[in-house]
Amino acid sequence: MRAEIIAVGTELLLGEVLNTNAHYLSSRCAELGIDVYHHITVGDNFARLCETLSVGRERSDLLLVTGGLGPTADDISREATAAAWGRPLVTDPDLLDRIRTYFCNRTVEMTANNESQAQMPEGAIALENHRGTAPGFYLADDVGSVACLPGPPGELRAMFEEALLPLLRSRDLIPETRLFSREILTAGIGESTVADKLADLIDAQTQPTIALYSGTGTVRVRLTTRAADAEEANETFVALQGEIGRRIGEYIYGYDGDSLSASVGRDLRERGLTIALAESCTGGSLSGMLTDAAGASDYFLGAIVSYSNAAKEDLLGVPQSLMIEWGAVSEPVAGAMAEGARDVLGADIGISVTGVAGPGGGTEEKPVGTVCFGFSGPWGTETEGHFFTGDRAGVRRRSAIYALVGLRRRLSRSS
Amino acid sequence: MRAEIIAVGTELLLGEVLNTNAHYLSSRCAELGIDVYHHITVGDNFARLCETLSVGRERSDLLLVTGGLGPTADDISREATAAAWGRPLVTDPDLLDRIRTYFCNRTVEMTANNESQAQMPEGAIALENHRGTAPGFYLADDVGSVACLPGPPGELRAMFEEALLPLLRSRDLIPETRLFSREILTAGIGESTVADKLADLIDAQTQPTIALYSGTGTVRVRLTTRAADAEEANETFVALQGEIGRRIGEYIYGYDGDSLSASVGRDLRERGLTIALAESCTGGSLSGMLTDAAGASDYFLGAIVSYSNAAKEDLLGVPQSLMIEWGAVSEPVAGAMAEGARDVLGADIGISVTGVAGPGGGTEEKPVGTVCFGFSGPWGTETEGHFFTGDRAGVRRRSAIYALVGLRRRLSRSS
Repeated sequence: MRAEIIAVGTELLLGEVLNTNAHYLSSRCAELGIDVYHHITVGDNFARLCETLSVGRERSDLLLVTGGLGPTADDISREATAAAWGRPLVTDPDLLDRIRTYFCNRTVEMTANNESQAQMPEGAIALENHRGTAPGFYLADDVGSVACLPGPPGELRAMFEEALLPLLRSRDLIPETRLFSREILTAGIGESTVADKLADLIDAQTQPTIALYSGTGTVRVRLTTRAADAEEANETFVALQGEIGRRIGEYIYGYDGDSLSASVGRDLRERGLTIALAESCTGGSLSGMLTDAAGASDYFLGAIVSYSNAAKEDLLGVPQSLMIEWGAVSEPVAGAMAEGARDVLGADIGISVTGVAGPGGGTEEKPVGTVCFGFSGPWGTETEGHFFTGDRAGVRRRSAIYALVGLRRRLSRSS
Repeated sequence: MRAEIIAVGTELLLGEVLNTNAHYLSSRCAELGIDVYHHITVGDNFARLCETLSVGRERSDLLLVTGGLGPTADDISREATAAAWGRPLVTDPDLLDRIRTYFCNRTVEMTANNESQAQMPEGAIALENHRGTAPGFYLADDVGSVACLPGPPGELRAMFEEALLPLLRSRDLIPETRLFSREILTAGIGESTVADKLADLIDAQTQPTIALYSGTGTVRVRLTTRAADAEEANETFVALQGEIGRRIGEYIYGYDGDSLSASVGRDLRERGLTIALAESCTGGSLSGMLTDAAGASDYFLGAIVSYSNAAKEDLLGVPQSLMIEWGAVSEPVAGAMAEGARDVLGADIGISVTGVAGPGGGTEEKPVGTVCFGFSGPWGTETEGHFFTGDRAGVRRRSAIYALVGLRRRLSRSS
């Protein structure tokens, strides 16, 4: 089965909207084992869309058309598809009823142009839209098939998953095996080090395949395999996943949709430990990251964002002498900040971050990117100094991730 | 001038990578007054790329090809372009020198396949790549022209702006007028209210055109006009911008690339005021947002993230009686938190946020999305209660923006 993805909309050609629909459909087709050889985008232009549909109809088995199903004159996907397949447009009475009910339920007045949305090429099968007024449709003949789907991403995804896929499955048009993937999420280790530690596995990859993806402070290892179902895929993953765990296990914080903050939260909750933070250069964003996870109040007591030196002294009890001798960005001050946060908030663990996020404030001795961390807990108080590259946002984000990674390491060491 | 954007890369067809290059080039072409009628994506397949280039060469004036310029066997843009334009591939000695120098400067060993990157179709003009090894090229004949650009977005953008555009300009191929836009950034007002207040202006729009874009807690009003230069565009904007300012000026926090946190920072710096925060449900993310702006230490003294009730009492001095009588999420507690932050950190202004971000913790009386704010400053102490829709991340983000908007309003009122 060879599919072609055709996006319709002048706003895409003007660069006003990013074509995330093609990305979504491509990724789903890859998972489903459907080959995609072309993406095409055309504007709201009847002649160009007809030509695109005619070319696609000859060379592909299924055209996935997104957009152009609205009620206005520049929504041309219905007419153009009818023309390319040589069918008249007919009004579907069921669709008309459904559209009228949609407006009725919303006490919004239905304008006449909404009735055009009840039209389909003769012989097409309607695809329901539970999130908007524009129905889609599927049309097939001996030459090729086409599914017209709405442009808004939420409507498109729901219709693809809930209406089109079941229809294609019922006609045995979806391959029996599809792609499954497992993402192994790591932090605190660079992409090149991961590549090095997994080099022989990457070289020998067949089923599953292995790919590395690098984010800000995180690296994802993605295993992909073709299988009939999730269970069969899992059997293929398990040995390789175990081997990767033996090599870089200490850096793995989760799998698939997991987050570092949720992973740290689980570690704390399991151990019944509470935490408090003292932030300087991260300015509250580390606390913000940790409390992204729902239920963070189980272990997170609070934080002191001590941006000014006075706040470090008054609120965290950092001795003035330490600040004078070592400076606010120093391991001794980081240690005192972590202890201060722990004591002031009555937590089991205190973590601190103090650094130069830039763009200003750097010196020769402590350039922008210099960040010190304090970790105070059942293991005593430990400090680390580190240097991060990147702009202000990058240094801040890498610092926050580094603090969480350092905490995870200490928790797993002490358990 | 009619351009066509052709992306090359199997990773795009597999949905592994989002085609942001087409979005960037489209948006730049729209600004430059170049029409784009087609986006095409094909994989690393010689036959399909050749066919795409041949079709594009006939129907468009300029093909912008992205990707497929790397050193490996599946990088086929050089060969396919040479084939479509009927030219042999030749090695450019200057390019070969430059590639050798690139590797030499990096003390990385140059492999033989890197030499293929010095090849171009005969008669092509090289486009320098200052950010990577892959040079691009521009080739024109009587039928059509093509520019092959690298796939990595940073390299693509630099080469488009620094090498291709100057070349096209020197050949008078860029239209004399182009699109300019001005974004008016608002917060604290909904999209439908903006639309309502500007309805007659939107209905009557010609030059400039007006479009509204809604974000989380913010609405952007974009004016767009065609003009010869920035000065002429500005003359077109000024009257309309003034009228919009008269209608929704109190919600406007900036223009174009501005941020709400930088705008609030300017307001504070101008008035010589310092600020401290007390955060509960936003968990540090409000401080994180405020300190996104460089130089925030000029006015931001610090914050207390009082996630636990004990922290609200101990660190912020919120009377236990208030917590018992009204609950932690209440306007009286929000007021006491704001005063506490201001006093404890010795700031001129204290702002607090306490609410139910969800997914848990909601009650019938205070459902998820209930958030209370305290604003303590030269105007005294004021509180507000508000209800936000959305998931945990949405409620937190909207709450942080609402706090900054509330501060701006009070600062402008009191100045």
